[in-house]
Amino acid sequence: MDSIEIHKKLRGKIFIAPKAELKTIEDLSTLYTPGVAEPCLEIAKNKELVYDYTFKGNTVAIVTDGTRVLGLGDIGPEAALPVMEGKALIMQQFAGIDAIPICLGTKDEDEIVSAVKAIAPTFGAINLEDIETPKVFRIEKRLTEALDIPVFHDDQHGTATVALAGLYNALKVVGKSHVKIGIIGAGSAGYAIAKLFHAAGFTDLVVFDSKSAIHKTRDNLSEHKLELANLNSSNFSGKINEFSGADVIISAAMPGSLPLETIKSMNKPNIVFALSNPISEISREQAKELEIDVFGTGRSDYPNQINNSLCFPGFLKALLDLRIRKITNEMKIAAAKAIADSVGSPTKEKIVPDAFDKKVVGKIHAYIKELSS
Amino acid sequence: MDSIEIHKKLRGKIFIAPKAELKTIEDLSTLYTPGVAEPCLEIAKNKELVYDYTFKGNTVAIVTDGTRVLGLGDIGPEAALPVMEGKALIMQQFAGIDAIPICLGTKDEDEIVSAVKAIAPTFGAINLEDIETPKVFRIEKRLTEALDIPVFHDDQHGTATVALAGLYNALKVVGKSHVKIGIIGAGSAGYAIAKLFHAAGFTDLVVFDSKSAIHKTRDNLSEHKLELANLNSSNFSGKINEFSGADVIISAAMPGSLPLETIKSMNKPNIVFALSNPISEISREQAKELEIDVFGTGRSDYPNQINNSLCFPGFLKALLDLRIRKITNEMKIAAAKAIADSVGSPTKEKIVPDAFDKKVVGKIHAYIKELSS
Repeated sequence: MDSIEIHKKLRGKIFIAPKAELKTIEDLSTLYTPGVAEPCLEIAKNKELVYDYTFKGNTVAIVTDGTRVLGLGDIGPEAALPVMEGKALIMQQFAGIDAIPICLGTKDEDEIVSAVKAIAPTFGAINLEDIETPKVFRIEKRLTEALDIPVFHDDQHGTATVALAGLYNALKVVGKSHVKIGIIGAGSAGYAIAKLFHAAGFTDLVVFDSKSAIHKTRDNLSEHKLELANLNSSNFSGKINEFSGADVIISAAMPGSLPLETIKSMNKPNIVFALSNPISEISREQAKELEIDVFGTGRSDYPNQINNSLCFPGFLKALLDLRIRKITNEMKIAAAKAIADSVGSPTKEKIVPDAFDKKVVGKIHAYIKELSS
Repeated sequence: MDSIEIHKKLRGKIFIAPKAELKTIEDLSTLYTPGVAEPCLEIAKNKELVYDYTFKGNTVAIVTDGTRVLGLGDIGPEAALPVMEGKALIMQQFAGIDAIPICLGTKDEDEIVSAVKAIAPTFGAINLEDIETPKVFRIEKRLTEALDIPVFHDDQHGTATVALAGLYNALKVVGKSHVKIGIIGAGSAGYAIAKLFHAAGFTDLVVFDSKSAIHKTRDNLSEHKLELANLNSSNFSGKINEFSGADVIISAAMPGSLPLETIKSMNKPNIVFALSNPISEISREQAKELEIDVFGTGRSDYPNQINNSLCFPGFLKALLDLRIRKITNEMKIAAAKAIADSVGSPTKEKIVPDAFDKKVVGKIHAYIKELSS
């Protein structure tokens, strides 16, 4: 069945299901009024009990304004809903999380922050999704400061964590450890990958936007590009096609932004992740012609799918179960190691686990739990 | 099992369930990326298709700020969550509606309006619940004007509709049609009952607050009390204990606000609804001593339970299925008739259907549908 047909048939990929059945007047009076007043009053006395008596502790809001959905751009909140329902479906099936799409009818930064702050008491965590940059960086920061629940931004945290997991295993395959890295794209993914790789000790890296390398002496850098300029330790200032001798290239930009000459000038054995989705920057056939040693993409029909869905179910489950308030780099690095370790013996065509590998969620949970013990 | 125990065991009375299973990479790529891009793009072109391809059309947000929960007052959004989950459970079991509790961490009218406007694209209807008066009247009005989905306020619409259903059958039992009515309480319930009864042709009515009858020459009346004063066609200005010769008394106020002398002076056969919950204004034993002919309460352990849950599942289901944008008095009157007609032959002890009567939802739907045809 094609995607339109199945969406039409289902009319929603998730639904609200009962955990208990109302069969008698007694059921009504313990689960609803008057009996429900008892847990209400207990929570009113001690707010923490909301985690014991309600669904809050296992519930995530998937929040978007529909401004940067997949590679489709600003398609609006209604059109974003099928994607958010898909994420909710994955969260339930892979990690037993109750996730609720919240597609917002405003693009205004302040209104988004206010709305998420307003709905937060209902949820155990917030998952920001497919909101345009750089606005989303400010929204994430403001909400993280304001809320007493964790704020996960999948386009940053999820993508960067899976890319780092892929890098760990790719390095094993090619037998390298100190590597020169080029990252193409300074959106959510490129920005977060650069920051996480740097935090994980990969400090020889340069980020490129459509103009050139992002370096400290470039004019008019936005706040988040200034951060990226400060990571550019070699202070390389050329364009991407002038960047030679890299061991690793990660592209998280539009198809066409990864020049073949950059790949040809890499230091072999080499690693290339071309993450644009659904059309990757270079095809599998091109990768073979170019003799790339380890090649990863965002596509499910190629080997080595560097996909967020390897991270977010387990990561969110850990955040919820461990009642973590703020996400740290250490947690993302632990999750990357957990994902990498889920692959027994990595090979060129198997640097990350299969999308349906049931081990991953538990391993992420265990590795993050270890940090706090 | 007592209410605390069962809430602790369930940790939430509802959960997010999948409508489809992700078993293969192909499932992932039709229900999620890249296939999901197809319904997204179709909706981006024609927003109405969100009703065909997503859960929006069957989904209700149950919105509260926790300021007036049951008879417990302002207990906050977290403490309100068990009640909202209970309503969601009822909506799913009784009418197959997907309802999602949204407990807001703000009491500010403007912030509540903004938050609900922001989240509205996700939902097919808004159910306002347990928000303090008179703020909630303004919120309902502002949202009804701003949104393209219906805004149902259960404390008003639900309670008034069931009270009217009870009145219809009680009048059959006592054999009256033109009646003098006293309504005690000018909160959400009292206000809405007065307005709906008046719209249904019961124009000989007076509403009392804790001070006296609400009449046109009283000073400093708020906007909503001024509306009630305008319904006081006899312009009665005394206190409730001076109100004699009524055929019907509806009390939707705190226990203690319904004086026995008012009941004793009623015009027999008489009808009294004492709706305060969980403790009704007068007990069943007192009602017997006073020889009230038809007596209804909000309690599930007495006969004639005038409870919102007879209305809201069917009413919301009709709003969703019929894609109704604005709620009218005609719809509430139709729903009241549907509820009343669900009782074959009303008697003194059976003026409304049983809480588990499966006919009610379909009958409300059919009667409302008839209006639009």
